[in-house]
Amino acid sequence: MNPKRFALTPGEPAGIGPDLCLLLASQPQPHPLIAITSRDLLSERATRLAVAVNLLPVGPGNWPEQPAPAGSLYVWDTPLAASVVPGQLDQANAAFVLETLTRAGEGCLDGTFAGMITAPVHKGVINDSGIAFSGHTEFLADLTHTRQVVMMLATRGLRVALVTTHLPLRQVADAITPERLERVTRILHTDLKEKFGIAQPRILVCGLNPHAGEGGHLGHEEIDVIEPTLERLRSEGMDLRGPLPADTLFTPKYLEHCDAVLAMYHDQGLPVLKYKGFGAAVNVTLGLPIIRTSVDHGTALDLAGSGKIDTGSLQVALETAYQMAETRL
Amino acid sequence: MNPKRFALTPGEPAGIGPDLCLLLASQPQPHPLIAITSRDLLSERATRLAVAVNLLPVGPGNWPEQPAPAGSLYVWDTPLAASVVPGQLDQANAAFVLETLTRAGEGCLDGTFAGMITAPVHKGVINDSGIAFSGHTEFLADLTHTRQVVMMLATRGLRVALVTTHLPLRQVADAITPERLERVTRILHTDLKEKFGIAQPRILVCGLNPHAGEGGHLGHEEIDVIEPTLERLRSEGMDLRGPLPADTLFTPKYLEHCDAVLAMYHDQGLPVLKYKGFGAAVNVTLGLPIIRTSVDHGTALDLAGSGKIDTGSLQVALETAYQMAETRL
Repeated sequence: MNPKRFALTPGEPAGIGPDLCLLLASQPQPHPLIAITSRDLLSERATRLAVAVNLLPVGPGNWPEQPAPAGSLYVWDTPLAASVVPGQLDQANAAFVLETLTRAGEGCLDGTFAGMITAPVHKGVINDSGIAFSGHTEFLADLTHTRQVVMMLATRGLRVALVTTHLPLRQVADAITPERLERVTRILHTDLKEKFGIAQPRILVCGLNPHAGEGGHLGHEEIDVIEPTLERLRSEGMDLRGPLPADTLFTPKYLEHCDAVLAMYHDQGLPVLKYKGFGAAVNVTLGLPIIRTSVDHGTALDLAGSGKIDTGSLQVALETAYQMAETRL
Repeated sequence: MNPKRFALTPGEPAGIGPDLCLLLASQPQPHPLIAITSRDLLSERATRLAVAVNLLPVGPGNWPEQPAPAGSLYVWDTPLAASVVPGQLDQANAAFVLETLTRAGEGCLDGTFAGMITAPVHKGVINDSGIAFSGHTEFLADLTHTRQVVMMLATRGLRVALVTTHLPLRQVADAITPERLERVTRILHTDLKEKFGIAQPRILVCGLNPHAGEGGHLGHEEIDVIEPTLERLRSEGMDLRGPLPADTLFTPKYLEHCDAVLAMYHDQGLPVLKYKGFGAAVNVTLGLPIIRTSVDHGTALDLAGSGKIDTGSLQVALETAYQMAETRL
């Protein structure tokens, strides 16, 4: 395995992202990992946590080729607009958060980084600052000029991809169009092959309605949209099962024989995934021209600076990004 | 524990309901349990399964006071309209299915039965026969003149009640009104106390939208409807937490400290419940003047007459009904 550089964005500076980066530095990584954030922020948080970390400045013209030694962390210094109090959101730093994502994303596009791993942002404070922002996933799609991306969460033994993501529930049914379902299914199928190395992926597809519409008695989207779209894609050779009722699909009988579940919306697919994998789940953005993984938890503002956090999800996010980068070549 | 009579309805005659009743008879029950179905149907299915069961006819004027011995099953004979081929639905028997439910429900109302336990019906074939039918729960609400009932599924360590049930997804958001949410929450709270013996129930309430609306950025129903309704009920002393995001609520941190989860709709709450409890989950109808529990699985038409079925869910449904009947007195 040749070392490749990866970017790590700590996300919301008042949350636990900076803490996660610092705790991570106690163990060596197999690749050079670059935290893109404020060096002062990390320094202050390290003092608060009483963690000894050697912050090594890197950046354009000065990229490392080897992993940092244990106890050290590469930092591409990115200035804050306002100093940070752990746990206290500040709209003034919204643009800083987006700048770290832009640096990471553009670095992936130009080959500086082999992939990026993101810690949680706080969507609310970014929007409150006047910048429309619906999530990392959507932001990176815009940055990379990608028309359609797919959000997938994974944990040991289960991958769940979503046809719609951060959409109010009342808008979901109209968003399940043949075009969107086809695009999402194609991306999921392609990326399971190309980024996860699965030769012939089997995908289980949920219905939109309870009991997958029960033959039209509980809704018509399965008959009108989902079944014809799946049938068309099956004729190309894709192994797609469904539409199946979500409350029977997520049982061992079905899950043991599939590579991914495609859920129609956020709260149909993610509660089971997070129940099964809490603390060890990873969020993967499919369809991008770059590799991007993320932790599955939130900013945990109440725990920032406390030291009472678990790096389990971040470890899985890192490992998944490393594996995807290897598979891709 | 004084013996009380309970009614068992096998549901769809071409499904596994008759098989379940027959397999159940091999073990003694603590109470007289009356299968309400066709004696001929049970007889034929017993022959097919090579199960030796003594069918004991009972009915109005001839109710048993003691449990049937092992190997015997009490049957209140209810005639079929057409003979049954296992696995083959027949609209001609739709009225028969509803008649068994009516007998059980009315028997609960008049005190003949202390509760009823139902095996699965096939909604599609009943509707196809020209009878509008959206489920056991709704049927029993009508029969008992109950304005609002609540569907709750339970397994060891988790109970999930639903604000809306068998509704196409696109109708869900408009169905979450303050009035409905208040009625459902009151019924859940009351029945956890009165039928489950929990002195001060703690209920976790899901948001409607992903991330519980994330402060209004992903939908407004939490702010406009759910939060004010919960606040009003909390002021009466109810212990209600939320609205919480469904994908963080279903994790041990939250679940270990609650008596029930209230989900806004079917596929938000039931996938986790069935993932956790598959094969040993029970469906309880709250808010009725009678006790009613049900298996959590479907008709399994492909397994009818095969003998390859598991009575686990039915056993839990029976035990739960027995316990509720004891708690109630």
